[in-house]
Amino acid sequence: MTGERRPRSIHRAPPPFTRSEFEQRIERARALMTATRLDALLIASEANLPYFSGLESQIAWISPSRPWHMIVPLEGEPVAVIPASGLREWRESAWVGEVRTWRSPNPENEGLDLLAAEIKRTARRFRRIGVELGQEARLAMAPGDLMRLLDMIRPVQAADCQPIMRQLRFVKSKAEIARLRHIGGIVSDAFADLSRLFRPGMRDADLLRALQADILLRGADKTPYMVIGSGRGGYDSTSLGPTGRKLTKGDVFQIDTGSRYGGYFCDFCRNYAVGKPTVAVQRAYDALWHATQAGIEAAMPGRTAADLFHAQARVIEAAGFQIRDAGRMGHGLGRNITEPPSNKPDDHTVLVAGATVTIEPMCMFGRGKLMVHEENLVVTDKGPLLLSRRAPVEITLLSP
Amino acid sequence: MTGERRPRSIHRAPPPFTRSEFEQRIERARALMTATRLDALLIASEANLPYFSGLESQIAWISPSRPWHMIVPLEGEPVAVIPASGLREWRESAWVGEVRTWRSPNPENEGLDLLAAEIKRTARRFRRIGVELGQEARLAMAPGDLMRLLDMIRPVQAADCQPIMRQLRFVKSKAEIARLRHIGGIVSDAFADLSRLFRPGMRDADLLRALQADILLRGADKTPYMVIGSGRGGYDSTSLGPTGRKLTKGDVFQIDTGSRYGGYFCDFCRNYAVGKPTVAVQRAYDALWHATQAGIEAAMPGRTAADLFHAQARVIEAAGFQIRDAGRMGHGLGRNITEPPSNKPDDHTVLVAGATVTIEPMCMFGRGKLMVHEENLVVTDKGPLLLSRRAPVEITLLSP
Repeated sequence: MTGERRPRSIHRAPPPFTRSEFEQRIERARALMTATRLDALLIASEANLPYFSGLESQIAWISPSRPWHMIVPLEGEPVAVIPASGLREWRESAWVGEVRTWRSPNPENEGLDLLAAEIKRTARRFRRIGVELGQEARLAMAPGDLMRLLDMIRPVQAADCQPIMRQLRFVKSKAEIARLRHIGGIVSDAFADLSRLFRPGMRDADLLRALQADILLRGADKTPYMVIGSGRGGYDSTSLGPTGRKLTKGDVFQIDTGSRYGGYFCDFCRNYAVGKPTVAVQRAYDALWHATQAGIEAAMPGRTAADLFHAQARVIEAAGFQIRDAGRMGHGLGRNITEPPSNKPDDHTVLVAGATVTIEPMCMFGRGKLMVHEENLVVTDKGPLLLSRRAPVEITLLSP
Repeated sequence: MTGERRPRSIHRAPPPFTRSEFEQRIERARALMTATRLDALLIASEANLPYFSGLESQIAWISPSRPWHMIVPLEGEPVAVIPASGLREWRESAWVGEVRTWRSPNPENEGLDLLAAEIKRTARRFRRIGVELGQEARLAMAPGDLMRLLDMIRPVQAADCQPIMRQLRFVKSKAEIARLRHIGGIVSDAFADLSRLFRPGMRDADLLRALQADILLRGADKTPYMVIGSGRGGYDSTSLGPTGRKLTKGDVFQIDTGSRYGGYFCDFCRNYAVGKPTVAVQRAYDALWHATQAGIEAAMPGRTAADLFHAQARVIEAAGFQIRDAGRMGHGLGRNITEPPSNKPDDHTVLVAGATVTIEPMCMFGRGKLMVHEENLVVTDKGPLLLSRRAPVEITLLSP
């Protein structure tokens, strides 16, 4: 079922990040810290701790028993504050040499004394530290522990450092883009070869398991996200499933996946028809393909996230369809499957070279049907560079 | 490579949770809320929101753009406070009918007004609500938003509800145990058939990709955690890898996985030798097999997590090995890969029927080598019931 007979296309895996990659990230962070008067950043999230440290750990983020932290000071060496059981993992993958450990799990005090001491030692100039408090922050420490820590470090104050992290991570380095291209290429190949996995009458859940296995065997690390919408003559959901529904002649379906390599996500979908689709489906597909194209072409330095929305919406509406506005038509991507900005009318984030975004138009058609397309790209000075391989101009047919 | 020729053993998937399953969970929560004088619980974590609501969503937890919340009041209907784009998903899977939505992403106010209004409406008796603040809490909302919300609801106070959630989730229902047995059975089968995936000289990363694909195709939902430790004559790590190392004659390795079905994790490992292992390896394996057995047999109602530690440690030390104490020798499991309690000398949590734990002894041997075993079980009034299929009494040989 996973098509062992035909060799899978092989992409060369990108190289490890160099130490200078991390040093550059920290230098950029320090410039923003100086501008916002922060003595240090306290980092405790899956999105940001490996971003600065290079830590490769599964257990740090999947098990809530032992929190991991890092302090990035304005001056001097970064310091890791991690569970003693994680020391080996830290030394193996992270470049940061200064490490404080405690014997965890210790719910009464999960490293808080160590953190408070480090922060007090460091926060002497502005008496302010940055903490991942704001937009889209997801800390891998208990919120009550964070509040207790903020009390322990007084008179040092905490400010939200998510604006800094957003600005830093918005612009991807060449090495980051290599990882985004790698996972985009793997998943593009798997989508292109889906007919090898599909059997008419199979359940959507079985197709998704086979596709996830295929993506893994092609070299992805994980597929944390994969959904399917299906129905006769069209589907009516974009982020549900699988439901166990059988895929049969006359069905149209879309599969959307966030798969990951080396800490970086792709996020795009593909549409399929089991047997020849209706004219309505072909017309919706055509409108969205061209809306996607318009979104891609609009992704130039100096344009805004709102411009990406309008570029897509114009094409959909000109083709006589109503946009299906789920709040935005695409978003940033990188270490998270979704990152700022949002492609919506009131998001005026200006695109710059190195920014990675999804273009994700949706439209309504027929009786309660909808359709979605999605591609991933990086903005460059020479124009948009696709991270996913462009969807075919006509919907992919699977034999019924 | 994934062994298509031989059919995989099939386990029948457990049925969906019934509405009464959720009602019972909420009734148990309400008894604890009354005892601790809480008017409502504010729930916003992947561990607890589906526990009460039945929500099946991937995007809610993987994308940080849109937070999902639920309020469980002492009296009256629970209320969901979720992004408008998630309404379809909620209606499809969750039983809770009262839903408030807002147009998200809206970083300026991600549902906070709605949450504050609901909490103020509800918190009239004790003027106190429970929030996931303490031990092992991982909220899927920004900590700064939580702090802002706690200000908005004054004079209503917030108290840590993790002790309540811990007590509730510690005792699994029959339906929960069915899911835990299902994933334990799938992974036990895959481990037992590992020789079909193994080729001498293959890289550890390729073996892990093949095994993850195999586990998926046998019916698991996800394998968020899989690590491998390997080395000639033994390994020296338990939560690292893969590193890309080739597995060759004379190697001993262990693979540990947290795989998931229907929201519930297994967490256990298996040991393999490529060709006949040394006597030292055989002796360590034998000691740990019997230590595991002692841990399993100690898992009776009325015994403590500390008892599980000592039962294992005694056997290891009696066999002449030094225990490798990574802070604990096993832990609870369920909706998280690790849950309280910790099997360690100072954790006196009393085991009760329905509690699910891992038994996880480790020892040192030779020059810097270590070994780990792990099994999963549920405590019953008739004794321990294994959720994983017991590891063989001798280390599994793979032909070199």
